[in-house]
Amino acid sequence: MTRFLLLVFWLCPLAAGAADLPSWNDGGTKTAILEFVERVTKLEGPELVKPEDRVAVFDFDGTLMVEQPTYGQMAFCAQQVEPLTDPPEVRALFKRLRAMSDEAELNGLSSGDTRKLWGYGFAAESAGDIQDRAYGWYTRSWHPRYQRARAELLYMPMLELLRFLQAKGFKVFIVTGSVADLVRSIAEPLVGVPKENVIGSATKRRFAPGHPSEVERLPAFADMVDGETKVLEIDRRIGRRPIMAFGNSDGDLAMLDYATSGPLPGFAALVHHDDPEREYAYDREGPVGRLKEGLELAPKRGWRLISVKSDWKTLFP
Amino acid sequence: MTRFLLLVFWLCPLAAGAADLPSWNDGGTKTAILEFVERVTKLEGPELVKPEDRVAVFDFDGTLMVEQPTYGQMAFCAQQVEPLTDPPEVRALFKRLRAMSDEAELNGLSSGDTRKLWGYGFAAESAGDIQDRAYGWYTRSWHPRYQRARAELLYMPMLELLRFLQAKGFKVFIVTGSVADLVRSIAEPLVGVPKENVIGSATKRRFAPGHPSEVERLPAFADMVDGETKVLEIDRRIGRRPIMAFGNSDGDLAMLDYATSGPLPGFAALVHHDDPEREYAYDREGPVGRLKEGLELAPKRGWRLISVKSDWKTLFP
Repeated sequence: MTRFLLLVFWLCPLAAGAADLPSWNDGGTKTAILEFVERVTKLEGPELVKPEDRVAVFDFDGTLMVEQPTYGQMAFCAQQVEPLTDPPEVRALFKRLRAMSDEAELNGLSSGDTRKLWGYGFAAESAGDIQDRAYGWYTRSWHPRYQRARAELLYMPMLELLRFLQAKGFKVFIVTGSVADLVRSIAEPLVGVPKENVIGSATKRRFAPGHPSEVERLPAFADMVDGETKVLEIDRRIGRRPIMAFGNSDGDLAMLDYATSGPLPGFAALVHHDDPEREYAYDREGPVGRLKEGLELAPKRGWRLISVKSDWKTLFP
Repeated sequence: MTRFLLLVFWLCPLAAGAADLPSWNDGGTKTAILEFVERVTKLEGPELVKPEDRVAVFDFDGTLMVEQPTYGQMAFCAQQVEPLTDPPEVRALFKRLRAMSDEAELNGLSSGDTRKLWGYGFAAESAGDIQDRAYGWYTRSWHPRYQRARAELLYMPMLELLRFLQAKGFKVFIVTGSVADLVRSIAEPLVGVPKENVIGSATKRRFAPGHPSEVERLPAFADMVDGETKVLEIDRRIGRRPIMAFGNSDGDLAMLDYATSGPLPGFAALVHHDDPEREYAYDREGPVGRLKEGLELAPKRGWRLISVKSDWKTLFP
C-alpha cells in the first residue's frame, strides 16, 4: 500500500499537465505550451531557464479580453468623458461620439481624433482617480452583444495560462497599446497582474507640487505603445528579453519576434479570432486587431496560432 | 515546559525588532523605521496597509552606494568607453577624460558634455551587453580611496533595510538618475532588487528588426530621471504612490514629498553624509549629491535624517 502511494506520488508531476489549462481543448496548441513550459522549468533539464529570466508578455485587448465591436480604451473614453472646459473642437468631437448609436462607429475615428480623445479622457486626474473610475466602468458597463459587464469578457483560457505561468515562476507582464492606468484598474484585481507589471500607452503628465503633491494627467496624449515601441518599452522597463509572448494582431509581431530570437528558448503565439458563433471572426481586414502579416509570418517563425474555435473549450468565466 | 516554549513562541514576533537591522545603532532613526513598518504591517492594526500598496523607493548613488569622489555612472563612462567611429568632438572629450588623474575632476563636466558622455557610453549595445560589461566593472574596478571593488561599497545598513522591507511584503524599487541598465547590472545579483524594479535614466534606443531582433542603444542621451521626473516615472511605471522613500540629495525631494503626502501613512528619510572618518562629509555645497533644500525641508515635513556617523554601526559588508 505504501509502495502504491509512493508510485502515485512519483507520477503526479508527470500527470499534472492533463489537469492544467482546463478551458483548453487537448491537442496541438495546449500541448505545445505545456511542453515548452516543461522544457524551460524542468530542474536539471538541459534547457532550464533561471526563474529571473522567465519573463512572459501578453498583449491585452484581443489577447486577454474581447476587443469587438471596439476595445475598452475607446469605449471608455467615448462613454466616460465629460469635457467641460475644453477647446470647442474637443467639445464638438465628444458631441459627435455621443451621437453614435453603435460602438463600432468609434473605430472610424481618425488617428488625430483618437489621440485627442485619449488625451482628454484622463485629463487632470491622478492614477488613483482614473483607476477607480475605470474599474467601475469595466465592472458595470454592459457589452452590447453579450449583455454582460466587460470585466466578465476576459478570456478564461488565457487567464488560466497566465496563472499557470506565474505558478511556474514566470513574471508576467501586460504590454498594451491602451493607456496603462486603464488596464491596471482591472489587471491587478481581476487578471492577477500587479499594476507595476502593466506597460502601456501614456498621456502627458505633470508633477503638481505642494502638500499633498500629486501627479496629474494633462489633456495631451504622449506615447503609443504598439509595434516596435512595445519592444522598446519592454527593454526599457524590464531590462531583459522575454521568453514567451502572446498577442493577436500585427502590432504584436515585433514583440513576438523579440521573444523568440534570443539566446534562450522562446515561445510565441497569436490568438486567432475564428469563431463567429461564440465570439467574433476577424483577421486581415479588421479596423481593430488586424492580423495580416502575422498570418504569413507565424509558420515561418514557428509561432503558434491559437484558434478560438478549436483550441478553447470555454471562453468566459 | 510546553507552556514555556509557547510563551517564547508568542514573544518572538515582538522581540524581532531588536535583531533587525544589526548594522544600525539603536536609537532614533532605527526605531522610527521599525515603528513605521510595524504600524503599516501589523495584522488587524488600525493603519495596516495592504501588501500591494507597500511600495518603497530608494535612490541609488549616495543612498545605497558610495558616490564620491564621483558616482558610478560617470566613472564607468569615462573609464570604459572606447569611441572609435564617433564625431571628432566626442573623441576630443574622451581624450580629455583619460587625461584626468583624479576621478573628482569628472564632476566638473558641463551638462552638455555629460549628456554626450552618457549617450556614447552605451551606444550600439543591447541591455545584456551593457549589463555584463557594467557588472564586470562594478565588481573589478578599484575605488581610489577604499582600494576595494566598487561593488563592495554598497551601504550595509541600507541593504539590510531594503531586505527587511522585502521580508515585510514591500515591493522595493530603485529610482535613479543613472542609466537603468548600469544599475540593473548589480541591483539584481548584489542588492536583491530585480531588474524590472530599477527605474532610471535612459539613452535613446532603436529596434533592430531581423532575426535575431535586438534593441540597440543610440549614441544620444534621452531622459534624465531626477527631481520631479522621478515622481513622473514612478507614476508611469508603478502606477501607485509609494509609502516609503529614501534618498540623499535635493534631487530626491520630490519623490520623498510624493511618498509622504498621500492618503496612506508615509515615511521618508535622507542619508546625511556627515562622517569624514569612515566615508565622506558633504551636503550643501557638493558638486555631487547636493543636499541643501533637503536639510531645511526635512524637519518641516517630518522626514528623518539618517546620520552616517551616528546611525550606522557598520558601513560596508
